[in-house]
This record gives sequence, structure tokens and C-alpha cells, in this order.
Amino acid sequence: MNDHWYMQRALDLAAAMEGQTSPNPMVGAVVVKDGRIVGTGAHMGAGGDHAEVHALNMAEGCTDGATMYVTLEPCNHHGRTPPCTEKIIEAGIARVVVAAKDVNPEVAGSGIEALRNGGVKTEVGVLEEKAAKLNATFFHYVQTGKPYVTVKTASSLNGTMATPKGLSPWITGAAALEDVHQLRHIHDAILVGVGTVLNDDPALTTRLEIGGRNPIRVVLDRYLRTPADAQLVTDGKTPTWIFTEESPKSGNAPVLEQKGVRVISLPTVTPKNVLAELGRADIQSVLVEGGKTIISAFIAEHEVQRYISYVAPKLFGTDAAMELEVEHAQLVGGDIKITATAKKGDGSCSQG
Amino acid sequence: MNDHWYMQRALDLAAAMEGQTSPNPMVGAVVVKDGRIVGTGAHMGAGGDHAEVHALNMAEGCTDGATMYVTLEPCNHHGRTPPCTEKIIEAGIARVVVAAKDVNPEVAGSGIEALRNGGVKTEVGVLEEKAAKLNATFFHYVQTGKPYVTVKTASSLNGTMATPKGLSPWITGAAALEDVHQLRHIHDAILVGVGTVLNDDPALTTRLEIGGRNPIRVVLDRYLRTPADAQLVTDGKTPTWIFTEESPKSGNAPVLEQKGVRVISLPTVTPKNVLAELGRADIQSVLVEGGKTIISAFIAEHEVQRYISYVAPKLFGTDAAMELEVEHAQLVGGDIKITATAKKGDGSCSQG
Repeated sequence: MNDHWYMQRALDLAAAMEGQTSPNPMVGAVVVKDGRIVGTGAHMGAGGDHAEVHALNMAEGCTDGATMYVTLEPCNHHGRTPPCTEKIIEAGIARVVVAAKDVNPEVAGSGIEALRNGGVKTEVGVLEEKAAKLNATFFHYVQTGKPYVTVKTASSLNGTMATPKGLSPWITGAAALEDVHQLRHIHDAILVGVGTVLNDDPALTTRLEIGGRNPIRVVLDRYLRTPADAQLVTDGKTPTWIFTEESPKSGNAPVLEQKGVRVISLPTVTPKNVLAELGRADIQSVLVEGGKTIISAFIAEHEVQRYISYVAPKLFGTDAAMELEVEHAQLVGGDIKITATAKKGDGSCSQG
Repeated sequence: MNDHWYMQRALDLAAAMEGQTSPNPMVGAVVVKDGRIVGTGAHMGAGGDHAEVHALNMAEGCTDGATMYVTLEPCNHHGRTPPCTEKIIEAGIARVVVAAKDVNPEVAGSGIEALRNGGVKTEVGVLEEKAAKLNATFFHYVQTGKPYVTVKTASSLNGTMATPKGLSPWITGAAALEDVHQLRHIHDAILVGVGTVLNDDPALTTRLEIGGRNPIRVVLDRYLRTPADAQLVTDGKTPTWIFTEESPKSGNAPVLEQKGVRVISLPTVTPKNVLAELGRADIQSVLVEGGKTIISAFIAEHEVQRYISYVAPKLFGTDAAMELEVEHAQLVGGDIKITATAKKGDGSCSQG
């Protein structure tokens, strides 16, 4: 057991809250005294206590001379709650180990300074990269003012994103679909082009067995072609925002707004312009689910922070499909090599 | 140490010869006496000794009462060499463990029968599935008369097989390119459509640092548009066969043949027809390297036994590209999930 070990516990605590802390970061804390964990805590959501406070409360009576491991620099400002630095000093914590500094320029370093000024031995940088990765979304948002963009696609092995006519529209299997709903759960917004709305009339909601958070739905729709009877207009399950180049009073706009949709007019509907607007509305993460035109626009503007590709071991022709089985998926240099073989009975050899 | 352990050694010996035994299968053999390996062997290529013979020769003087592990049923017919079954019996081997029966209907079971009739205790099926996989190409060829087809593609994360103008034509990195040359080495033929010849003028040779085998080059070219100055026509490095629907005397055909190319006329140039011709010429394995039209034709006719997809962590737009890094490649159910994140400095956050 060492600093890394305890910090990993704090990171695990933080990560368990993925999807429920926005617009705050995920933070975990562990208090250790005489070789035993005496308190643990995580920030569970905006308005709730910080991780440090939960951990100190749990450790009550055992905090004097203890060590605290915390994944993000403790706050030093009076926000929704009093500064954690004060509470840590008052509790008599002797040593604080921090994974990553807070990148927010208004905070960065001041929490650490306050602890040191309060006589607490403070170290920074243990598992820093993991901590930065955990809060990549938050850090990106704080530093750029724009949400962190994840593009998600599903395709066949030969790169086709549409199934041949007559086949199930689901390219991937049940486990991958559940994974996508998990992705939706951890995003503040989900974004598609109007083409997807016109073709698929999707709900874009999070459908997990035990429930989940619905991101707001964002449609890029330059000419305001979203039908007033589209699911995401009428189902009322989560807000829908439509970005358009039309006037907010033209065409369908009044009907859409009457149904609760927010119609936002921009001079040009580009990824950068839309992301800036979303950032101003405290949206920290966006999941782009297509279609091709929208994804290409995000690539062209270099506005992709993460790309998640689900590849089904299928081959789609214009009106034929073959089902294969994945044999290997491995890294070869920096590239991925996927090897899939025909299922028995689909032109492959039977075993002798 | 048990039967599985020794059979795995025999399989490893066999697998080391991948690419050099065609039209024969890969076979490995291990002779064990009193708990020690006393002989090992593998079939190293057509015309050479069988694995069993190499192993018996090495074990000379120690074969009486020994056990032989062999990955494929020993032959029982006088071919290029006398039957292995006779040699095994003569050597006094007491027990033979076979991984897989030979699927060739002219052989299947007769080798095992001969051994048993000769008083050798013979068991079949140890690591059978691994042995069948090792010789999937050979088994497929023997059972169908057509070569085993592997389709290979390289694409960006967003499924694009062509690089944006002005960028390197190599989508994947050096390690993946070397891997492709390794694939060529183990194939009897490499197949492309004439479009690939016209666009890229490829050599389609095996370029590995320590040399390698060049597959024959096959071009599907219905209208015989292959230029007489194409690399694969002029370089003389390995035979080139062109399948066409034109008469073997029309257009470019005489010029091409004069340069050593074999022009083969078929009523219709379809995957099935071409594979049947290749099978008749003892070609057991074909690597299809594109382009899209050719690959679609193979999918439409269900003539794909294996598909190998190299995916570079890049995003290609019409005239933009982003380089990402693979973070995970994992199986989710039967599908592959690839997660890649933007490199630092390409719109992604810098670390706090």
C-alpha cells in the first residue's frame, strides 16, 4: 500500500459518479490514519457536498494527523459550500495528496497554496494523468468554454453505416446498444443532423434497464425542416434544442416552440458556433450520433475530442450481408487490426 | 505435461511453416519416449519430407515403444514420398496421437485405420479445433475446390478507404504495412480489380526486410483495361493473371501475353468463376486487396472466409484529417468497440 494505491481508491470513488456531477467534476477522497482508511467520499452532484467533506464527516474523530488523498485540488472559494481547504485545516489533516490541479484559471494552485499556508504538507501529481483523463470533459470545458465532443458511429466491418434493405436496422448487438445508452447517460447533450430526424425519427433518450439520465437533444437544422410530429418534438421526455439559420419566427418555428422546443437562430450553423452556444448554456459534453454530413463537419473543424466506433463483424453489400465472428482485435503499431472469420455454414469449411 | 502439451509443441512446429507448404497442409510432429522429446519435425514444403519422417529420423534409435504426436492424420498413400503410416509402424511407435483427421475424402480415416491395423494404439481429436484452424486454408480448399478468401482493407476510423488529397496515401502505420506484407507472404495469390491497377499501379509484391514469397497477382478486368506498362505487367517479379470477358486475342491481350501475363477469358468474370479457375490451378488461398467494387462482389456471392480490417485512428473529411490515439479496442458482446481520443494539441485539453 502506498500513495498510488490510496489514490486509485479515490479515483474509483470519483469514477462511480460518472454522468451525475456535471457541471461539476468527478472528485473522490480517502482519509487514511495509522495505515487504515477511516473515511471515503465522492462528490455526487451539483449542490451536494464535496468529496473532501463527505470523507471528513465519515472520518470524524480520526482526522487529526491523518492523510487525505483527493483526486482534484480542493476548492478554496466560497461557492455553494464553504471552501474545502478550511475544513481540511480545521480537521487537523497533516498531509494532503492531490492527483491533479484544478485547471480552472480562477482556482488553479490557490487551493494547494491555502493548504500549505495552513501548515498542511501538500503533494501534487500522484496518478495525475488518470485524474486528468477521468475529468477530460470538465477540463476541456473549463479551458475552452466548449463542450467535449464524442462522436459515436456503428458500422459493418466493411465500413457501411446503413444496413441493406430488408435487414434489421440495428447493426450491432444488444451489448453494444446498451453501451450506447450508457454513453448517452454520461452526456449533457446528444446531437444529430436533421437528416437523422427525417430518416429515423429517433427518440434519442437513454434507455437502460435501471433508468438513466436523458441528455438534452440538439438538432442541427439549417432550413428548419424538423417535422412538428417528430418524436423528439412531441414526447416531452427531455428538452430539444434546434439550431437553424432561419429566423426564429419563420416557418415551423412558432409551432415547434409551442411544443416546448427551443429554436435557436445562428447566422451560420457550424459545429464551432453551435458548441460555443452550448458551452454558454453550461453543456459540458456532447455525443454526436450522426449522420455522415454532421460528422464530416465536426471533423473538418477539428471539433472531435473522442471517437467511439462500434464495428459489427458483418459485411454489408448493396443487398447482401454476411455474418462473421471476431477472431482477434489487436493493436498493430498505433492501428487496430480486426480479424473476423465466416461462421460455419456460411461458405466456410466445416471441421474435418 | 500431457497429450495437450505435446500436441501444442507439434502445432507450433507446424505453424512456423505458414506460407511455405502450399499446396500441402502445415503439419508438425513430436516423438516422446520415457517423458523426453526425442524427435521433432515439420513439413517444410512440397517435395520435402513429411513431418513424421523428420521426427522419426531425428529420434532414430529411440522410436521403439515411443509415442508420436502429429497434427494431421498421417498419409497412407504413395505420393511424392512413401506412406508415413508404414514408417511409423516400422519404427516401432507404440502410440500415435492425432489432432485432426485429413479432410481429403481420399484420405480421411485410412491413415488411422492403417496404423491401428499395424498394431499402433491411435487416438484422434487432441487440440482438434486448433489444428483445423491452422489449416483452415487447406481444409477449405480440399473440401470446396476453391481457394480460401481473405479480404483485407485499411480505413480510417470513420470508414474512409481513401486519404484526403494531399495526404500520404498510406492510411495505416509502418507496423500494419509490415503485417500486410506478412499476409501476402502466406497467400498463393493476391487479387485486385482493374480499378486498383489504373488508380494506384501497385506492385502487389511481398516486401519484408528478410524477403518473402510473392503470391501470383490476379486482376479482375472484364474489359481488359490493364495498361501494358503497369508495374505488375512489366516487373517480372511474379506471375500475373488477368481474368477478362474479352476474347484472349482482342485489344491488349497479345501485348500483355507477350510480356508474360496470362490472359484468361471467362464468359462472366465473377468471384465464383474466378475462384473455381484458381482452384483448378492449385491456388489454395487468395488475398483480396480491393477495391470496393471487387470486395462488394465477393460479399454478394458470400465468397469471403476471412476479413481483416486495419483501422487507423484517424478521421478523414473531404479535405481535412485528424489524428487520434487508440485508447481501447475491446469486444462488447460480439462487436468491437474502438475508443480513440484526440492527440494533445489537436483540439483536446492540455493537462492541468
